[in-house]
Amino acid sequence: MKRVRLVVAYDGTHYHGWQIQPGKVTIESRLNEALTSLLGEPVQVIGASRTDSGVHARGNVAVFDTSHRMPADRICMALNQRLPEDIRVQSSEEVDPDWHPRKCRCVKTYEYRILNRRIEMPMQRFYSHFCYFNLDLEKMQKAAGLLVGEHDFKSFCSVRTQVTDTVRTIYSIEVKRDEEDMIGIRVTGNGFLYNMVRIIAGTLMAVGMGQIAPEDMGAILEARDRRAAGPTAPARGLTLIQMEYDG
Amino acid sequence: MKRVRLVVAYDGTHYHGWQIQPGKVTIESRLNEALTSLLGEPVQVIGASRTDSGVHARGNVAVFDTSHRMPADRICMALNQRLPEDIRVQSSEEVDPDWHPRKCRCVKTYEYRILNRRIEMPMQRFYSHFCYFNLDLEKMQKAAGLLVGEHDFKSFCSVRTQVTDTVRTIYSIEVKRDEEDMIGIRVTGNGFLYNMVRIIAGTLMAVGMGQIAPEDMGAILEARDRRAAGPTAPARGLTLIQMEYDG
Repeated sequence: MKRVRLVVAYDGTHYHGWQIQPGKVTIESRLNEALTSLLGEPVQVIGASRTDSGVHARGNVAVFDTSHRMPADRICMALNQRLPEDIRVQSSEEVDPDWHPRKCRCVKTYEYRILNRRIEMPMQRFYSHFCYFNLDLEKMQKAAGLLVGEHDFKSFCSVRTQVTDTVRTIYSIEVKRDEEDMIGIRVTGNGFLYNMVRIIAGTLMAVGMGQIAPEDMGAILEARDRRAAGPTAPARGLTLIQMEYDG
Repeated sequence: MKRVRLVVAYDGTHYHGWQIQPGKVTIESRLNEALTSLLGEPVQVIGASRTDSGVHARGNVAVFDTSHRMPADRICMALNQRLPEDIRVQSSEEVDPDWHPRKCRCVKTYEYRILNRRIEMPMQRFYSHFCYFNLDLEKMQKAAGLLVGEHDFKSFCSVRTQVTDTVRTIYSIEVKRDEEDMIGIRVTGNGFLYNMVRIIAGTLMAVGMGQIAPEDMGAILEARDRRAAGPTAPARGLTLIQMEYDG
């Protein structure tokens, strides 16, 4: 028996998120099916991040156990031939049998993309949130800077969650605009609360529209109240970029 | 009666190209339907570039005539509400009644995108050609430079065409690689032969793979024979970026 770690990229548009749900097509169910078929034994993956419906990933992580003799690094290519084209495993490698993707220290990076122009651009419609209102990038950058560091992010956590410790550390938030009017908000941290990146993105958009002042970010954090922050930005703009583990 | 010019962006994935064909869904047919419904009179557009099936556009151009009183610049937003989400008109403006998008001088820019990495990235699958083989960017840039200028591009023209004058001018070709392994080949010129950009892209890929030497580009041009150049790269990688007119 060995434990194998996968790095998984997917276009989340046509999935009901990561986690298995009865009667719904999810990333986890597709991976389990393809692995079970490839290895000829029932396989169940454990995912690092259970992304929501419509959220994309370049580098989500999952592990599974198998007694099959196929070398771990060969599983990646063989698995991709059994997966639909909107899921592609980027790598596969053997890890310690007790390594668990949600029980070890990890630095996660997400990107939220906002297409900020007068009219939508069709090729971007599944991978960004469209915003007609001209956003003030400098204000958004200033507000983002005030979120960096260790804070209680309770105001940036969906009320649907039952987590008690809402303190997290954001190592960096970069807000950039490219030549094609795409604003990318790239957030790196040691862990994220439920919907945290989408609430940060929604709040920074409100800042960019002038509805919230950049210097209000401190008060929003201190409120420890979801109602103090801006709206939750739509799922399609969010991509899990990468997860970095020590081991 | 007035003539209106549209700048049109579309995701070509689900269309049989621009031009109307019986029983097929095309960009032109969708535009005609939406305009006819909006303006309450039969409308037929004339397109600048009749892009192939699967090719995308950020800025194709079309004109049509109408006797409707709606101001030309208001048509854009009203039209988008009647178009599917993979077609978005970017602007609409009145032009001279005799202005014709294929009968006046124009500078066109196309981009061909190649995702050059070991494993596919799902979010890019409809908007780039995937190439597993590691491409030598410097060689591609050197070869591209030899195509710039006025040349007879007969070797870079699909044999299915009946054009007799195959001399064209390429003003610039830029070959760049971004941090996400996407190689963009951006070509600007005064006009392009049938499949010319896709044959240039296919030839530069062959150069990047070491199958053709950069310094062979001169001989390929001189051959004036389609068989001298590389293969035609797939449609999904091509985007018509913009068309610049004097008037």
